[in-house]
Amino acid sequence: MNCPLCLAKDENVIYKNELFRVILVDEIPAFTRIILNKHIAEFSDLSLDESLELSKAIYKIEKAMLKHIKPDKVNIASLGNYVPHLHIHIIPRYKNDAWFPDSVWSAKHRKYEYKTTQEQIQNYINEIKQL
Amino acid sequence: MNCPLCLAKDENVIYKNELFRVILVDEIPAFTRIILNKHIAEFSDLSLDESLELSKAIYKIEKAMLKHIKPDKVNIASLGNYVPHLHIHIIPRYKNDAWFPDSVWSAKHRKYEYKTTQEQIQNYINEIKQL
Repeated sequence: MNCPLCLAKDENVIYKNELFRVILVDEIPAFTRIILNKHIAEFSDLSLDESLELSKAIYKIEKAMLKHIKPDKVNIASLGNYVPHLHIHIIPRYKNDAWFPDSVWSAKHRKYEYKTTQEQIQNYINEIKQL
Repeated sequence: MNCPLCLAKDENVIYKNELFRVILVDEIPAFTRIILNKHIAEFSDLSLDESLELSKAIYKIEKAMLKHIKPDKVNIASLGNYVPHLHIHIIPRYKNDAWFPDSVWSAKHRKYEYKTTQEQIQNYINEIKQL
């Protein structure tokens, strides 16, 4: 099987447990992705208990993102059309970012420079580490 | 307050409880949206218990969608950049639909005619009604 999320080696993992790992994605400061450890495609391929454990993590990550990164909005999405291995995007959005109010998968409207500081990111990571 | 989801009157509601309602969206057959009854913007504005109740509904709706509608993939997203009133899109995707493998918020690649039957939709609705 050639799944890039099963084979991934150079991820910036900030938290890991038996069910999933949490990584930071370079494109946007604090862009966070939860990747399930096992190769399943859909949210409901998890057991109900596993789905609730995942949901709790999404909830806590979003709360930490709002507290430390202070975006105007958080976008959460599980698509997996390119890579059908369950992963959830948790994305900080700003009212004048490149795509706003459209999705980050839409055409860009403008250029945007993120003002997120290293200190904010570090405080965010420190909280995620306690998931 | 002029929130279109607080004021909405012509929704195709197929299930409703104290926390949220579930509607069908015209654009794509079986495109389903969960709309929270109260006006909050973010997933983590819910209590943790409410978030888990919502998550359980997403799980069951996706399972029913896979069973009755038989899409190639399900996309789940909570964006709310246009309307910051918490709502979750649950979208059946097909390998040759207009946007695939991109998001439904991306540019279209082609035309696509959905093959979903009224019977499938009805079976799907019947299952959602038992949430």
